[in-house]
Amino acid sequence: MSLLVTGSIGIDTVTTPYGVSENCLGGSAVYFSMAASFFSPVRFVGVIGVDCPFNLAEVFAGRSVDLTGLERRANSKTFRWKGSYHDTMNQAITDNVELNVLAEEPPAVPGAYKDSGFVFLANTSPQLQGRLLDQVEDPAFVAADTMNFYIHGHLGELKALLRRIDCLIINEDEARDLACDQNLISAGEKILEMGPRVVVIKKGESGSVMCSATGERFVLPAYPAGEVKDPTGAGDSFAGGFMGYLAECGQSGFASLKTAVVYGTVVASFTISEFSLKGLSSIDRAAIDERFETMRKLTQF
Amino acid sequence: MSLLVTGSIGIDTVTTPYGVSENCLGGSAVYFSMAASFFSPVRFVGVIGVDCPFNLAEVFAGRSVDLTGLERRANSKTFRWKGSYHDTMNQAITDNVELNVLAEEPPAVPGAYKDSGFVFLANTSPQLQGRLLDQVEDPAFVAADTMNFYIHGHLGELKALLRRIDCLIINEDEARDLACDQNLISAGEKILEMGPRVVVIKKGESGSVMCSATGERFVLPAYPAGEVKDPTGAGDSFAGGFMGYLAECGQSGFASLKTAVVYGTVVASFTISEFSLKGLSSIDRAAIDERFETMRKLTQF
Repeated sequence: MSLLVTGSIGIDTVTTPYGVSENCLGGSAVYFSMAASFFSPVRFVGVIGVDCPFNLAEVFAGRSVDLTGLERRANSKTFRWKGSYHDTMNQAITDNVELNVLAEEPPAVPGAYKDSGFVFLANTSPQLQGRLLDQVEDPAFVAADTMNFYIHGHLGELKALLRRIDCLIINEDEARDLACDQNLISAGEKILEMGPRVVVIKKGESGSVMCSATGERFVLPAYPAGEVKDPTGAGDSFAGGFMGYLAECGQSGFASLKTAVVYGTVVASFTISEFSLKGLSSIDRAAIDERFETMRKLTQF
Repeated sequence: MSLLVTGSIGIDTVTTPYGVSENCLGGSAVYFSMAASFFSPVRFVGVIGVDCPFNLAEVFAGRSVDLTGLERRANSKTFRWKGSYHDTMNQAITDNVELNVLAEEPPAVPGAYKDSGFVFLANTSPQLQGRLLDQVEDPAFVAADTMNFYIHGHLGELKALLRRIDCLIINEDEARDLACDQNLISAGEKILEMGPRVVVIKKGESGSVMCSATGERFVLPAYPAGEVKDPTGAGDSFAGGFMGYLAECGQSGFASLKTAVVYGTVVASFTISEFSLKGLSSIDRAAIDERFETMRKLTQF
């Protein structure tokens, strides 16, 4: 089934204990699309400024990523993010952010995308997420990400969005903040009461927890990676693997959601093994499926 | 097979967001024995002072815990610990500690315990752990715990102990400190090179990771507990369930070790659901086995 993503394209400068990657390609829609494209064709919606040094058609060459929804806006500058990771690398420190084109009007969803069955609204203001969702007709499964800035500053709009989506995919700190509950399991249950029928809580190197409104739960450790070079894009790659698999199988029952969480985990493990998109762009579906089986072996008893 | 534990008996005062538990029974050997007794008879070695208000024979009534190795020392005072947990309750803050009798000579291992097949050396100075281990003849499987204080201050003695044991069971921060490596997986591998053939790294609400010298790995999330009232004793209960199961089945191959990690996780989840020993003492083996099956359902895909 068709899969639509709305999100950012960024020029990232990232420092980790393994080195510095300057002015590299990043952004939620980019990581998501690269990850999801192993499973399903992707319909891409995002906007760049005239200064963007990357040719996304080349970046996604040979992958089924439809860039009809990529807008290059004259007189605007591309989103830039400068961040660093220290010690356990569990948390990104934002050293500098220039929203640039992301602070303007969102891009339009092309007419040909309006029948998309699976939709992922990457992190941006919940009001914009709602306006992007308005442009899709009757999707089967909508997932969204958000962040603390919107939980604290735009809670009303976020709660309005939560009533319209099927699945929220967020970090553990965000889940605690949104639910006002330190315990992740009860936090997940409180978020379910806000609207979505599924909540996936990502815990970085500690894996993820998924709760459904029907009372089902799934807990999965992270892939035990011996070397993490750059965690940037891990969350969006997770979402890409998760949504890509669901779009591929065209289902969203709990068994499929569980498999999707495993695929999201596996794809993210490749992302963090290298800087920027290097980890993701150097693998194929067979490598993903092999690591999926490794995850099964590592976790089954 | 016979299971021996050496560890502490404490008078604990614990504060968590759920309340205060004053002067309650605690200590590593107590939590361990209660947890292990669901699986296997336990041989208990520990020492209290004349002020100890608890009758351990009553505490363990109806359970197969042999208290021949419990020494009540006149002119000594019992170990006391005062601690608190905040926010996510992932870390214990020690507000006050009185080693008292634990700073004296360790108790003797009774002659009838010398043939113990499975041995758990709970956290104390590695030199004392070595002296306790000296008193056991040819055990089949020895596991030990340690803490940052000994990693930083008694590393030589700790490394000597590591060459004598089969399994180290430690927290994630301790693993990082011991291996001088922020990545838990490579930290585990570095610890294996120090001697033990198995390392179990406990990550609190994020579960655990086990690595073996033969290259096998197992990762398990924590039981997704909706309410955590008091994390005190979780680690020692984990060790008790882990070692209790191994002693019950008399094996220590990787398949048995995996099952043991699941049992440790399950038993610890009961401990943290109530203050002190209330959670552990109110269950039976059937409840443990039921939650074991729940863990399987929660984690299998």
